[in-house]
This record gives sequence, C-alpha cells and structure tokens, in this order.
Amino acid sequence: MGSPDRIRNVAKRVARWKRNGNQVVVVVSAMSGETNRLIALAKDVSPQPDERELDVMISTGEQVTIALLAMALKDIGVSAKSYTGSQVKVLTDSTFTKARILDIDGQNIQRDLDDDTVVIVAGFQGVDASGNITTLGRGGSDTSGVALAAALKADECQIYTDVDGVYTTDPRIVPEARKLDRITFEEMLEMASLGSKVLQIRSVEFAGKYKVKLRVLSSFEEEGQETMGTLITLEEDTTMEQPIISGIAFNRDEAKLTVLGVPDHPGIAYQILGPVADANIDIDMIIQNVGHDGTTDFSFTVNRNDFVRTKALLEDQIKPHVGARAVSGDNKICKVSAVGVGMRSHPGVASKMFRILAEEGINIQMISTSEIKISVVVDEKYLELAVRVLHRAFELDQAT
Amino acid sequence: MGSPDRIRNVAKRVARWKRNGNQVVVVVSAMSGETNRLIALAKDVSPQPDERELDVMISTGEQVTIALLAMALKDIGVSAKSYTGSQVKVLTDSTFTKARILDIDGQNIQRDLDDDTVVIVAGFQGVDASGNITTLGRGGSDTSGVALAAALKADECQIYTDVDGVYTTDPRIVPEARKLDRITFEEMLEMASLGSKVLQIRSVEFAGKYKVKLRVLSSFEEEGQETMGTLITLEEDTTMEQPIISGIAFNRDEAKLTVLGVPDHPGIAYQILGPVADANIDIDMIIQNVGHDGTTDFSFTVNRNDFVRTKALLEDQIKPHVGARAVSGDNKICKVSAVGVGMRSHPGVASKMFRILAEEGINIQMISTSEIKISVVVDEKYLELAVRVLHRAFELDQAT
Repeated sequence: MGSPDRIRNVAKRVARWKRNGNQVVVVVSAMSGETNRLIALAKDVSPQPDERELDVMISTGEQVTIALLAMALKDIGVSAKSYTGSQVKVLTDSTFTKARILDIDGQNIQRDLDDDTVVIVAGFQGVDASGNITTLGRGGSDTSGVALAAALKADECQIYTDVDGVYTTDPRIVPEARKLDRITFEEMLEMASLGSKVLQIRSVEFAGKYKVKLRVLSSFEEEGQETMGTLITLEEDTTMEQPIISGIAFNRDEAKLTVLGVPDHPGIAYQILGPVADANIDIDMIIQNVGHDGTTDFSFTVNRNDFVRTKALLEDQIKPHVGARAVSGDNKICKVSAVGVGMRSHPGVASKMFRILAEEGINIQMISTSEIKISVVVDEKYLELAVRVLHRAFELDQAT
Repeated sequence: MGSPDRIRNVAKRVARWKRNGNQVVVVVSAMSGETNRLIALAKDVSPQPDERELDVMISTGEQVTIALLAMALKDIGVSAKSYTGSQVKVLTDSTFTKARILDIDGQNIQRDLDDDTVVIVAGFQGVDASGNITTLGRGGSDTSGVALAAALKADECQIYTDVDGVYTTDPRIVPEARKLDRITFEEMLEMASLGSKVLQIRSVEFAGKYKVKLRVLSSFEEEGQETMGTLITLEEDTTMEQPIISGIAFNRDEAKLTVLGVPDHPGIAYQILGPVADANIDIDMIIQNVGHDGTTDFSFTVNRNDFVRTKALLEDQIKPHVGARAVSGDNKICKVSAVGVGMRSHPGVASKMFRILAEEGINIQMISTSEIKISVVVDEKYLELAVRVLHRAFELDQAT
C-alpha cells in the first residue's frame, strides 16, 4: 500500500475479483514508510518504548489503510467494510511486538461476505485475551492473510508482492530464469530461507500447516495485463510430472568459521555452539566431519555481519575451553543451493551438481544436504558463474 | 498534545499529580495537525469519505498519543496504561463522525487506578453497540473527559487549554481583565456561546448535567509556576457573595437582517425563519417588536459568512412570499453581552448597561436578554469601547 493512487488501483483490482463472483477478504499492510515513521516517533519520546504501547501505536498504520481501501471501494460502487484485528477478532498471545495468532473468529466476516460485502482486515495485528492490542512482528501481514484464509476456508490466499511470482533463480543473474507456475511449500521454504525473499518464511510455514493454497502475485501489474503468479501448493496436489530441480537459490550474506583439531568426544558441538547461540548469533549450516587421531574439524556459517564477533568469541573463549588447535574463518564466501522435491526420487542430483561445478573449476568448500536441497559453499567470486551453470545444467531455462 | 517534547512535559505534570496522592485518568487528544492530516489523506483517496471508515481512520490520531504518553510516563517511573475508546469501553450511538456517548464502563479503569496505575484514555472516540469505531465530533476530547469524570465520580475534571483560565473579558481588549477563580456552568455557557472560546459548549453542558466539577487550566505553564485556573461549578456550590456580573463577552462574527413591514399575524416567524433554517443557516438573536398598523418588523442575526446568502434568500423568496415591505441588512455590527448569575437578584443591570453605552454615544441597534445575560448589537466600530466601559462600570477590574 503506497500512495492514494495505489490504493485506488488496489480497489479496482479487488472490485474485478468481486464482480467475477468471488467472496473477497482483503488483508492490508500499512502505507509504505508509515510503520517506520511511527516507530521513529515512539523512539523520539522514549528511547526504549514500552512494547504494549508500541503495539497500540504501530497498529494504527494498518488501521488507516483499511479505512482508505474501504472508502475507495465504496466510491466505485462496491460494498465494503473494514475490520481492525481486534474487531475481527484475531486472538493472539500477549507477546507484544511479536505475538502469535491463537484463534480467529470468522463469524462477523462470514456474515458480511454472505451479505455481498468485501471485507478489509488490518494485517499484522490482533488482540490478546485481555483486550490488549498486539502486533505480529515481521511478515505479520502475510501471516494474517494466511491465518484468515485458513479460518474462512478460502479457496486461495493471494499475496501481492513487488515481484510477479517465484523464479527458478534471480533473473538479475540469469536472464533466462523462468517464473514457476507452481512450487511446493517445502521447496518454497528452502528457496525463501536460502535468500529468495519473496514471502516471509513464517507465512509459508503457516500456509503449509493449515493447507492454505498460496498464490504470489504482483501488485504492480496493469489492468488487463495481470498474470497468475506462482501457486504454492501441497505436493499431493500436483498432478504434473515434477521437475527434478525447481530452482537455484543463493545467499551472499554468509561467512564461514572453522574450529580445527577439536577433541572428538560427545558434547563438543554444544560446547562450541552454545556460547555462540548465547551471544544471539544465528547459525546457518553446521558441518562436522568424521574425526581421525581423536580430533575433528568443526565448521559453521553465520551472517556476514556477525563474522568478526563470532571469530573473536571462538578464539578468546571457545578455543581455550575446548582445547582446539586453531580457529580459521572466511567472510568472502557464498552459498548456492539446488532445490527440488524431485530429487527425492532421482538419485544422482548431488553428483551432477558437483561435476558441473568442477568442470568450471569452482572449488566446493562445504556441502550440506536435506531431503529436497543441496547446498554448497564456494568462494563468493564464483557466485554468478555457479548459479548460471547450474540453472542451465538442470534445464531450468526450458519450459516444462 | 504537540510535539514529543510537549508529551514529555505532560508526563511530568501527570506524574506530580500522581505523586501527590491522586488517582489520575488522563484523556488526550491527537497531536496538533494530525486529525487534519488524516482527513486530508482520506479526501485524497475519496472526495466524500464514507463516515464509518473516516472514523476508523481519524481515531488513530488519539490512539498514537495515548501510547506516546504512556511510554513517557513509564520512562519516568510511573505505572501507566493506555486505553482506546473501544477498550474502555465508551459506548456511543452509531452516528459516525458526531456520535453521542450513551454509557461508559469504568470497571477496567477503576481496577487499574486501584492498582496504582495512571490510566490514559483516547478522547474523541468510542464504540457503538456493534463494535464499530465512532468519533464524537468537535470538542469530542473535552466531552470524553467530562463523561469519564462523571462515570468514575472523579473529584474534578481538569481541562488543559492554551489559556490559563476564564477571564472577565478578553485581555487583548481590556488589559485589566481578571482571571475568574470560579464561574457557574450557566455563566460559562453564555460566555462560551458568546464567543469566549475556551471550552466547547458541549462539554460544559455535559459537565453541568452530570454535576462534574470542571477546571480550566493552562497546558503551557512551567513546572512550579502553575496556577489553579478557573473552576466551573454548580451555582449551589458557591458560598461566596456572587458578583452581579461575571464577565463581558462579545462576538464580532455577526450580521443582522431585518424584514420590514411584515403582516403581523400568527405563523409569520416560521414563514420567515423556516426557509432560513432549511438552507442550513444558523440564527442567533431573534427580535420581533410589537406591531402597529397591522405590520411589524422582524430582525435576526446570523454568522457574518452567511450574510450575503441570507439577504438574497430574504429578498428573492421570503419577501414576496410573506408580503413584506422591504429587507435591510448590516454586516458591520457586533454583539456585546454582560453575563452574570447575580443579575437574577439584582434588578437594574440592564438599565445601567444602557446608560453607560449612551454616555459614550454608542447607539444600541438590538437588545436581547436571558435570565443571566443582556446582549446588545452595536456598530462594530464601538466594540472595544463598549467592552472597556462596561468592564469598568461593573467593576470587573476589581478583585472580589
């Protein structure tokens, strides 16, 4: 939700969905910049604003947009009614600024829908059992939308973003990247967590859990030019032949650290990673090789911003404590991953991936795998090359 | 509520009231300019915004300030909690943008007060029986404060304004004007309706009806320099000797119109004023003299902005319809009034007023009286002179 112009455009698009015979619930976020403006105002009054009161304040951002969109819809002859989170009500726990949704009462909304009215709900907010206003934290509006879709048993939850769908990889790196018509929740989770920031992971998890069909669409497409975006579904829904690999994801915000010559005995992982977690440093990949001579090497990756702090922690506290031989690190690395549910039934994906990288002379520094994903850490200078050759080798540039 | 600085100052002042052993409920308005900003934004999206949705939007102005004030109080060690109108709840009818308060549930607030917490309530807003957000219209925050004071049986309702109390007249015209320590509700109503715009009439009426002691105070006074403002009480509360006249009020926004030679028969007032009211023109004074020769002259005053429109209406429609001889008008007039409950028991106030004006050569064009007020219409060039000589003649510059 950007400007008044943008709001009128959204109204037109909602009106078309309505006129095509759909019952429509719209979940909106605040106008761009509004939440940050409110937080800045709060910090101007109080350096560390009380979180209950911060939620009272920042929830007004969405309260303004629901009213504006309802006005715009009525102006073009569509019956519409706005709801705050508390009016719905979206019941949450009392963890202010990052509350979790506990329950949604869909009764009032359903009555309005049956009455041929478009319902507009403030995303990102709810109300706790005592009537306090809460907000859901990052990605909260997407989560509100998915939760409402689940509560109302909606046919589909459409999430309007600034991209027109989920791509096989970043088109800025591989111009041949294709938009996927559909992708499974699991693949989407892997793609999202690997740096393809289309949707907040939390809303995808939520949609997967409650079996809500999600569709990623662009909010910028012109009237008559709209595409159907990407549908995120349960794997069971897909009747087509699965491609082996759905996409190549990557993340350049990584740094790796290795503790060398660690005594290979039980509890060593906790002795190393416990203090790192206690320092509020998020850990991504973790790799421990089989040991020899009673010692092993222990590697992990962190966000690049935490590199210096983590290295100091390892050298000053952890190395002497666990009796390691040395600590090494590298913050010029990146992670490249191939993601696809198809690899479950197609062995040989990993070896193909390693062969392709080897043919280009790209050295693999770390490897980590899951059921539907293979990730490698390589020198960051190879990022674009690795993504391009993998995208081509797995035929992601070919229509399915 | 102006800036963050201002909010911190209010917090300090509230903290002192609290530390002096009071249970404190604070009703706040939006930050200056915020309500207008929101209305402009609404009109940018929709030329005639839907009123239900407009209330959803503009109620966010107060929602932001309650949170900011609660934060600021907590920062200086005072337990505080904010409430929106709907959280209180302030039950209103469903007349969006100008709702009337029906009931206030003081239970939650009382529990917090007993728990040693300062309660901060969003003024100007409420919630109807269906859970829709409503706003109270002009002067709504003052009305919210009075209504809450009544519901909670508060000792006193203090209204912080940009003046430090109610004066015997406007100090910009009469430098000797004195601040009144107390004034009755009836006098305050006459003063307010006559143009001394300290409080919204509606909140004074409300306070009178529910016997809430109101105190007008300045929100700009520095710490340690605060005065006690003006207490507005029921007449029965005052034990002191009443002054005969409490103040000289005036209004320069008036214009007068006269329909001359109107047939003097029943229903003529309605025939003249009915069409004026239908055109949404507010009428102030109305004067009809006894007739002679079967005709009479009929005069009334309107806001100066409505003068041209009203004159045209009288000439084009009303004059031919009622068979009047002529229509005359003057928009260079003003109204000056002496107000005081004491005149009930002191005859001769009117004749003294007329004598004083006559001594200055000020011609009186119209006279209107009530139980506690005498108003005269004079040429606007005499406004300052009339106010000064009356102020002195009724000894309003002398301490009681």
